[in-house]
Amino acid sequence: MAASSPVAKLGAELFGTFWLVFGGCGSAIFAAKQIAEAEDGRNAFQLGIGFLGVSLAFGLTVVTMAYAVGHVSGGHFNPAVSLGAAVSGRLPWKELPGYWISQVVGGLLAGLLLLLIAKGKPGFTAEGNMAANGYGDHSPGNYSLVAVLIAEILLTAFFLIVILGATDGRAPKGFAPLAIGLSLTLIHLISIPISNTSVNPARSTAVAFFNGNGAPGQLWLFWLAPLIGGLLGGLLYPLMFEDGKLKFGKATA
Amino acid sequence: MAASSPVAKLGAELFGTFWLVFGGCGSAIFAAKQIAEAEDGRNAFQLGIGFLGVSLAFGLTVVTMAYAVGHVSGGHFNPAVSLGAAVSGRLPWKELPGYWISQVVGGLLAGLLLLLIAKGKPGFTAEGNMAANGYGDHSPGNYSLVAVLIAEILLTAFFLIVILGATDGRAPKGFAPLAIGLSLTLIHLISIPISNTSVNPARSTAVAFFNGNGAPGQLWLFWLAPLIGGLLGGLLYPLMFEDGKLKFGKATA
Amino acid sequence: MAASSPVAKLGAELFGTFWLVFGGCGSAIFAAKQIAEAEDGRNAFQLGIGFLGVSLAFGLTVVTMAYAVGHVSGGHFNPAVSLGAAVSGRLPWKELPGYWISQVVGGLLAGLLLLLIAKGKPGFTAEGNMAANGYGDHSPGNYSLVAVLIAEILLTAFFLIVILGATDGRAPKGFAPLAIGLSLTLIHLISIPISNTSVNPARSTAVAFFNGNGAPGQLWLFWLAPLIGGLLGGLLYPLMFEDGKLKFGKATA
Amino acid sequence: MAASSPVAKLGAELFGTFWLVFGGCGSAIFAAKQIAEAEDGRNAFQLGIGFLGVSLAFGLTVVTMAYAVGHVSGGHFNPAVSLGAAVSGRLPWKELPGYWISQVVGGLLAGLLLLLIAKGKPGFTAEGNMAANGYGDHSPGNYSLVAVLIAEILLTAFFLIVILGATDGRAPKGFAPLAIGLSLTLIHLISIPISNTSVNPARSTAVAFFNGNGAPGQLWLFWLAPLIGGLLGGLLYPLMFEDGKLKFGKATA
Repeated sequence: MAASSPVAKLGAELFGTFWLVFGGCGSAIFAAKQIAEAEDGRNAFQLGIGFLGVSLAFGLTVVTMAYAVGHVSGGHFNPAVSLGAAVSGRLPWKELPGYWISQVVGGLLAGLLLLLIAKGKPGFTAEGNMAANGYGDHSPGNYSLVAVLIAEILLTAFFLIVILGATDGRAPKGFAPLAIGLSLTLIHLISIPISNTSVNPARSTAVAFFNGNGAPGQLWLFWLAPLIGGLLGGLLYPLMFEDGKLKFGKATA
Repeated sequence: MAASSPVAKLGAELFGTFWLVFGGCGSAIFAAKQIAEAEDGRNAFQLGIGFLGVSLAFGLTVVTMAYAVGHVSGGHFNPAVSLGAAVSGRLPWKELPGYWISQVVGGLLAGLLLLLIAKGKPGFTAEGNMAANGYGDHSPGNYSLVAVLIAEILLTAFFLIVILGATDGRAPKGFAPLAIGLSLTLIHLISIPISNTSVNPARSTAVAFFNGNGAPGQLWLFWLAPLIGGLLGGLLYPLMFEDGKLKFGKATA
Repeated sequence: MAASSPVAKLGAELFGTFWLVFGGCGSAIFAAKQIAEAEDGRNAFQLGIGFLGVSLAFGLTVVTMAYAVGHVSGGHFNPAVSLGAAVSGRLPWKELPGYWISQVVGGLLAGLLLLLIAKGKPGFTAEGNMAANGYGDHSPGNYSLVAVLIAEILLTAFFLIVILGATDGRAPKGFAPLAIGLSLTLIHLISIPISNTSVNPARSTAVAFFNGNGAPGQLWLFWLAPLIGGLLGGLLYPLMFEDGKLKFGKATA
Repeated sequence: MAASSPVAKLGAELFGTFWLVFGGCGSAIFAAKQIAEAEDGRNAFQLGIGFLGVSLAFGLTVVTMAYAVGHVSGGHFNPAVSLGAAVSGRLPWKELPGYWISQVVGGLLAGLLLLLIAKGKPGFTAEGNMAANGYGDHSPGNYSLVAVLIAEILLTAFFLIVILGATDGRAPKGFAPLAIGLSLTLIHLISIPISNTSVNPARSTAVAFFNGNGAPGQLWLFWLAPLIGGLLGGLLYPLMFEDGKLKFGKATA
């Protein structure tokens, strides 16, 4: 990994986060609901992919891009993951700002493209339909701020434990992208009704302003909670599973 | 594995079983049913993940945590699996009590967190809605005690055969977490309507008391049947597929 | 593989085919349809796993058992696969009868267990509800005999091509069980509405007599078509992709 | 790969593209919609596989055939992929025409077989029911020509980045077929409502003429956009992630 140029690394994070937002939020915007008429005309039914398909899509963005460019940048695509990687000694702290900026820019570009394509459908309105995250009235299941906060912290912390464990030198080689991507699928299977699932501040930022409808005002939580979760996971894994030798801030490029 | 400290091992089992219950039961509690309104207002339809999504979630908890901490503890997350591992000579008997306690504690903590988050949804009542296992009137499809007993024993026994076979020295390296996790998905695809699927006493215990509604009184079956199944699978695999050399109780740490 | 005893090999095929029928047909019988009431009481909706879940279940039976006992018997679990393996020189012809008998017996035992458990649901009637294969009036989508014949031959032939290719010495090591199992999932995604999908005479035989309702009288097609397909695939792969050196009947134990 | 004969290579591309169209479009034609009656007779519901199942089917055609014959031809099954492979130096330019012809012929044969089987269902009419791609009035969600153009270019470009990255010498060995196939699943999860998803001119051509209903007149876009996308992806990956050493046209057989 050290052999990749800084431009390649930041490009990998930008492309990867673009793909995560375009694929994950895009599947939600374009394909979650699609009604078809039963042939007997009696009632309509769902042809779309639902929350299950959206969960799969988010996970597959990470599976695919982590196999494609994980060897370049590590394949974070998520500021909370990069924070946890830095905390656990897997990413030099000085690389963190560049990673964060690439991730946010990549995500915002994806949000823009999603809007552009979505407007190609007659009658589409962006307001409230851009797969934003939310709590309270803006949670799909009306879950409270506290419930959303707990869920996002806990899920991001476990996400980091899976990431740090699956890339541990003792884990089977080559399977980390699969394990990590499928853990993002799992996280969405659990929590789309709770917060529309973030665990990723870049993903939340990418669509909040295009979505409007209260999302920009709630964006703080989807930075705060995933970053706390990333911090916790990044501290817990080395403490518990690397014999307590916390390598806080010891990574070198 | 022998290199991991006892604390790390028990921590891995506790975290893994927490994740299994939080992810598997959580997806059922939060996301199995979610109704959306068709745009034409004529009828409502399902956006939630259904039994298929819940099956996938249970399996992915094991896929992800077995890649993350399988190299620490073996990645059982289930008292019936630990019993089968001990019977087949893969786990020293003296480690069994610690594994069981960690698994039950991890599961109960997950049940508690699930309750805490679920209460963040207006109108949620825990009674009967915490993804408990059951038979008779408490089986999702009203399957009888005998049917549930047979299904749980048989499915746990095959679960052990898959586990012991996929981790056999002759099986392809590195794929065991995938094979084992996906077998848990398969087991749920078959049996959610029968018993809400246990094959794991820690998972059943984790939510029974929070769920109430008859679940605590039926909990005995979800210890008895998985443990019998684990025992059978743990005996059958070495007898049939390791040239009859049953290594009962021969494991060393 | 040559190191496994004949008993272990036949046991692996018996257990594997049991699992294929129990898991695949079981998911169809128990879980394909499950109706839930919307909270607003306006209409019912599907919680069950549908054809997608059944397709996944069939594939996962093979993924899981091929990782578990593939190193013992090769993991066929299907008389048409064993025929194609013999034709292509991967299985000694003299082992074919034992494989077929083990597969049919394993399947029938699974059919029996499925019936036993299914009867534990109040109101269940086996007649027509045991996931049998069929054509014409007994095809889920009323597809004709000719359409079913073509589909079953073609799908089994491609199944063999995937099996022989994924286990070819030049293919990536260790991925064959995944590729083969997922091809069975794919085959079901295509053809459940056509014939309820067989491509496996042992699977069809396992439930035909318990199902009744015309299935026993149509069983001939679900031996004939998969065996023709297995033969074609077993001839085509070596001819096309092993430089034309057809090793017909050259396998040794 | 250089060891495979030209006939084997072209056969692999023909069989692979046949399987992609037969499996992907076939699952859409036969299984996407299947209505069942609820037992209480109150309303009908969906048993079919929906867009999620079709997405999975398309991806699994590539996963399975890339493991089966990827070692023979590279496993493109798509003219846009072969173009991107040539541009990025992975396929000699002189092999491109043969690959394209094999892919189109394989696809058309699959379209023919699909029609043959579909006609075995009473009341089936091919017009508009052969899973063709389209924009405007022929887009499933009525997306405009411009939206479809952008989506198809962008998705094909990312498809190529995943393909070139996952087969890069620095990526984990053996996982490329999985990563590539699952990226095709992801692409379908995003864009079936937009264009019925092409990213593959051979797939579009395979069913356009059997489908009629405007599809032949729109076929130009489903050659133009995927080829532009393939070109872009084939240029971008080496420029960004192989240290800028663009090996344009340098491949040797």
